[in-house]
Parts: sequence; C-alpha cells; structure tokens
Amino acid sequence: MNGSAINRHWVLRERPTGEITVSNFELQRGPAPEPAAGEVLVRVHMLSIDPANRAWMFPTATYKAPVEPGQTMHGFGLGEVVTSNAEGFAIGDVVEGMLGWQDYAAVPGSDLTVRRPGTPAEHAMGVFGITGLTAFHGLLEIGRPRPGETVVVSAAAGAVGTIAAQIAKIEGCRVVGIAGGPEKCQWLVDELGLDAAVDYKAGELRKALKRACPNGVDVYFDNTGGDALAAALSTMNVHGRIVCCGNLSQYNTDRPAPGPSGVPGLLVTKRIRMEGFIVLDHLANRDQMEATMQGWLDDGRLKAFQTVVDGLEQAPESLVQMFRGGNRGKLLVRVK
Amino acid sequence: MNGSAINRHWVLRERPTGEITVSNFELQRGPAPEPAAGEVLVRVHMLSIDPANRAWMFPTATYKAPVEPGQTMHGFGLGEVVTSNAEGFAIGDVVEGMLGWQDYAAVPGSDLTVRRPGTPAEHAMGVFGITGLTAFHGLLEIGRPRPGETVVVSAAAGAVGTIAAQIAKIEGCRVVGIAGGPEKCQWLVDELGLDAAVDYKAGELRKALKRACPNGVDVYFDNTGGDALAAALSTMNVHGRIVCCGNLSQYNTDRPAPGPSGVPGLLVTKRIRMEGFIVLDHLANRDQMEATMQGWLDDGRLKAFQTVVDGLEQAPESLVQMFRGGNRGKLLVRVK
Repeated sequence: MNGSAINRHWVLRERPTGEITVSNFELQRGPAPEPAAGEVLVRVHMLSIDPANRAWMFPTATYKAPVEPGQTMHGFGLGEVVTSNAEGFAIGDVVEGMLGWQDYAAVPGSDLTVRRPGTPAEHAMGVFGITGLTAFHGLLEIGRPRPGETVVVSAAAGAVGTIAAQIAKIEGCRVVGIAGGPEKCQWLVDELGLDAAVDYKAGELRKALKRACPNGVDVYFDNTGGDALAAALSTMNVHGRIVCCGNLSQYNTDRPAPGPSGVPGLLVTKRIRMEGFIVLDHLANRDQMEATMQGWLDDGRLKAFQTVVDGLEQAPESLVQMFRGGNRGKLLVRVK
Repeated sequence: MNGSAINRHWVLRERPTGEITVSNFELQRGPAPEPAAGEVLVRVHMLSIDPANRAWMFPTATYKAPVEPGQTMHGFGLGEVVTSNAEGFAIGDVVEGMLGWQDYAAVPGSDLTVRRPGTPAEHAMGVFGITGLTAFHGLLEIGRPRPGETVVVSAAAGAVGTIAAQIAKIEGCRVVGIAGGPEKCQWLVDELGLDAAVDYKAGELRKALKRACPNGVDVYFDNTGGDALAAALSTMNVHGRIVCCGNLSQYNTDRPAPGPSGVPGLLVTKRIRMEGFIVLDHLANRDQMEATMQGWLDDGRLKAFQTVVDGLEQAPESLVQMFRGGNRGKLLVRVK
C-alpha cells in the first residue's frame, strides 16, 4: 500500500454520562498504522452501527474489553486487505472483524474472518453477517418456535429484529413486533408482513401486548430488556422461551433500571427458559445458516432492509440517531 | 370407614398481609367428607410443609389456583385410602396428592398417585417425594453440572436444598451453600459435607459469595430469588446455568422486590441460561430417579434430613417457623 496514506479515526473523547452525543467523539488524523508480524492492514469499507457500540463505551467489560477514552472507537466492520503480515491473508481479501471507526486498521489475522468475495457489502454485514446469524441462531436454536406459536420481537424494526421476525413468519408463527411510534409499527405490518405491531411509546405496553397476543406469547425475542421484557414476561405462556439477545433499553443511560419483577417468580410458575447468547460462540455451522438464508432471500420470503449512511465522518451521528429510532433494518456507515 | 369420623381442618381465615401468622388460620371441625363418584377418601398421615404453601395464599394463581379465604388450606400430603369410589384405588393403598391441612380428604382419583408400600413416610415425602425429585431433576436436567464445576445452592439447609447440594457433591462438584445464620452454615459444612457456606444474614452477600467461589459459579440452584439471586448473577461464569426452583425470599411478603438488575444484561454478556421448572411436568422417569437416589442412600453418599412435627394442630406454626429458618431438611407434620 501507499505508506503515506492518512488514517482518519474517531477517538472516544470522554465516556458519555447518560445519552451519547456526537461531542463524545473526536475525529483525528494520523498516518495509517503499520501492521506488525501476524497482523494485517485493512482498508475499512463499511462499519456496522449497533447498540453494542454504545455498550462498549461503559467502563465495565461486556463480552469484550471496553473502549477507553483516547482510544479509537470500537466497531465491527468489513474491509479489504492492503498489506498482509499474517498467514492465510492475501492482498485483496475481503475480511470482517473489529476494525474500529477508522479508514485503516492493523489487526491480528486471528481476529479476522475472510469472507466470500462477491457478496454485496450491505448483505455481508447484514443478513449474511453477525446480524443475520444472531437472528437465525437466537430465534431457531434458543427460541425454538413451533408453527402456530406466537412470537414477539422487540426492537422489531431494527437490524436483528427485522430478520428474527421474518424468520419466525417463515417458520409459520404468528409474529408481533414491538417498536417505537405509529409509523414504524405500520411499517412492520405493511413492509415486514408481521401479524401485528405494538407501539411501546403509546403507553400501557402490557395491556397492548396482551391485546395483540390473544393466545399468549410462546417465544419472546428480546433485543431491549426493560419495559418490553416485563410486559412479555406477564404475557408468556407456560413453557415459554425468552431469547436474551440484547438490552438496548439500558445501553444509552448511566442509570440502569432494576430487573423485571417477574424474575424469578414467573420463570418458575410458568416454567420459562430465558437464555442469553453471543453468536460468536456459534459460528461452526455458519455456511449452513447462510445457505438457508440465501434460499429464503432468493425465493423472496426474506427481505434485507438496510440504511446506509455515507462517510466515516457520519459514524457518531449515526449511532446517536439509531438510539432515536432513526433506522429501519441494518444501519451501516460506508467508509469507502 | 366409620361414617361418624370427625374431620379437623385448617381454614384460611384471611389472607396474610406481609408475613403469615398462626392467626391467619382457624381450626374447624366437621364430619369427614363423603367421596363422590370417581373420588377417594384419604386418611391423611403426613403433610409436607413447603414455601409453596405460602405462595398459594396469594390471591393470584401460581401453577395452581390459590386457596381462598374460608377454604381448607392447601397442602401436599401422604395418606391411606379408607373409601374408594375410583377405579385403581383399593382400601389401604398409600397415596399422595393435594390432601389439604386436614384429617380426611375426598380427592378425585385422577389427582392422586399410589406409592410403593413399605417406604417410611418421611422418605416417601422427602427424598423419594416431590422434594427429592425436584432437587434431582432441577440440578441434573436443568443445571447439568460437570465434575469440577462450582455449584451454589440457596436455602441450602432446606428440604430441596439439602438434597440438591448433596447430589452436586456426588457429581464431583465444588458446592457452596447459602443459608441464614452461622449455626446453619456450620451445619452445611459439618453435616452436609459442603465445601463452604455463606451466611446471607451477615451482610455483603455478593462479596462473601465471591470469596467462597474463587473460580466463579457455574450452576446456581436458586430456591430463593432476591439478594441471593442478584449475588449469584454477578458471580456467574460465562455459560453458567441458573436453576429457578423457587422464590422463597418473595413469598412471605406483600411487597415483592424488583427483579435482579443483571437481567437481562448479564444473561447476554455471560451467555447464561436461566430456567424455571415444576417437577410435576417431569415424572415420567420417576422410578429411575428414585432408584438412583435409593442407591446413593444405601451406600451412604446421600443423607435424608427431616424435621417431623407431631400433630395437625401444629401445621400453621410449622409454616411460620419455616420462614424463620427453623428447620433442617424436609419439614413434615405428622397427622396420624
């Protein structure tokens, strides 16, 4: 590569107190990093903007170490190898991994995955990326819905939610989405094809969910925690399953709410299984999952929704907007 | 039977507000009930005094309908058939089921289970009863401990706790019990053979549990909910399992605490499975479970602990004392 390439990178200036703002970040410029032995230099093409980005900004570790003030913001992304000092990586390979909010990333080869060439970047980061696999594994392996059961998905208009909800429809379930605002709810029914949608901003979520689920809830795919989880718990059927995928309602605050009062009482009386997962533990049969989803895409039963924002300089604002409910489906920032 | 037999029965006078007292109940006398077609008249021999008795006094249904003021108090018990109007039941059969706090119960045959004759009543109601099966199924099928893992049991000196903790030891685990007071904790180590015990009344439960579990917690067998659950959650290892068996800390109050704040956040980041169960759903292989436990009893690896209180008139006081931590192992009231 050109050794004089400039690397723009978004640095975490300070941890947010409460909701994040663009001013928590600062765009800095420097030379592109030099990959050490065993590392690969990646030109970042696309960044995935996820609720997890916000979670990594807390001082406490989640399933990975937090980003520290002064460090480049963590972010999952897709890019192209421009220099390789690692076995198994060639210039031009398309790779994914924790690239960070920047133009160029030097990353150990062991932290990268080579992707099939030819897949559009939006799909590689969406339905065929961690997002799609999360929805697929979480719904099918943890939720285990049966045809005719009622499945509820929170943050149903989001990246994982749109896919999980559609897979539940494909499986023959009655599917109810939870989202914020009447417009999004209408979109869930009209565009995503869900059986009903519940607007959590309209108040009385518990009652609204009960009305939308006259036969109770068998599987709750939880992207949010908080009020939606509490409402689902009170509506769950005996032997219900709760897929703990995310805790979105608690990420963008420094005052986390207490847990839902139905835990553990309702878990016992209703024999509920509640299970968290990180899809990175379950990538052994990734090819098979992707082939199944490719089939659904091809025959039109699964639609991939994404919002692509152009320019690395838009990354912080995109994350802020995501927490305001701005996107439908997968939110991506195109860097190159 | 003698048609003029007197039936003493404890009636729920009023629902408790907060902690139960003996005055919530009233002992009434009447003629023994007449069994209808399909029913059996049972002479009650032994009553099981359980945290669930208190839960059934709430106005809301648990996994069964609540006891209503004016009704005979619900209770699981063991007795002998004295009149049978139901197919499959003969006079003299030993049966178990929801007999209630009384001398004689008329119960549909379909709600009763015939027990093997010859088993001492304490064992039939303890290690070979619902209590033992709850510990066995919950620990092994839901907790799935592996040798060398750390298992924590709350209410470890209680009926289910003493058995679950011993089975975990038999399975080759490091076992830590949570109980109230230094004396009980000493008993857990000296008599039950646990590796350590933590006194939840001594304060700083979270820190004490962390000290007692230097390698973290792999399986938490939760009989209590509340603070013990919150402490366990913060100490759980990745891929840990929480067996939701009971919610004892919340039964004897009308002001339930909020749920633990680690739900669902820690479930996701630590990939924890949290699962409730009612053993009545899992009695298909009861004979096999009992045979296994008989083997452990015979070779001295499992000890059956029970406290037997004499006299139906002691039933309310026994339940009050159980919530004050009075018993070790199974608490029973001998009626006849």
